[in-house]
Amino acid sequence: MHKINLSEKLALFSEHWSPKIVGELNGQHVKLVKFKGEFVWHKHDDEDELFYVLQGSFRMEFRDKTVVLHEGDMLIVPKGIEHRPVADEEVSVMLFEPATTLNTGDAESTLTKEKLDWI
Amino acid sequence: MHKINLSEKLALFSEHWSPKIVGELNGQHVKLVKFKGEFVWHKHDDEDELFYVLQGSFRMEFRDKTVVLHEGDMLIVPKGIEHRPVADEEVSVMLFEPATTLNTGDAESTLTKEKLDWI
Repeated sequence: MHKINLSEKLALFSEHWSPKIVGELNGQHVKLVKFKGEFVWHKHDDEDELFYVLQGSFRMEFRDKTVVLHEGDMLIVPKGIEHRPVADEEVSVMLFEPATTLNTGDAESTLTKEKLDWI
Repeated sequence: MHKINLSEKLALFSEHWSPKIVGELNGQHVKLVKFKGEFVWHKHDDEDELFYVLQGSFRMEFRDKTVVLHEGDMLIVPKGIEHRPVADEEVSVMLFEPATTLNTGDAESTLTKEKLDWI
């Protein structure tokens, strides 16, 4: 039981689209990720996914609308819903989702990260 | 699917020790709470609990140590571990925990909130 400072953790990596695990509880992972550019369209068949903006802004595109998120904003994407995060500038995001969640969901992509590192 | 701004949600209530639900995913709740003063010693037999400081500072007392948390710090308290949050000044905290989690855990207390409101 030690505290986790998110700013310190964010300073430990610079890659985009590569979530890092910072905590685990009740079968869920807390992850940090930096987005820049366009991700791939995907959905998670079995997992709801929470995005919380720590620094910067990005937009979450859905097939029928777009939600723009700024620092302090949170968005929950329910399982089965296609989505694509897009960031014009780098943004730092906290994710909260089941430990089973694959970053690219059902999409075949070079961006897929099968094994995430703890930081 | 709409965004949730945590500052706006925090402005909606002022009571201490009364968590409000702002989101639900995968059987977990995202809650906001304001602490001031000393809570009751308790544990959760079946739920790990995450505390993330949005504004202010507080300390989490354990039977064998104390962890001081400031804005941007996160702490995961595993199930079964006795703890007591104490805040000298008001602090705003985000909680992630299973929807089944009772704020006072196994303790009998006038601070128990059986039914939480969504905001």
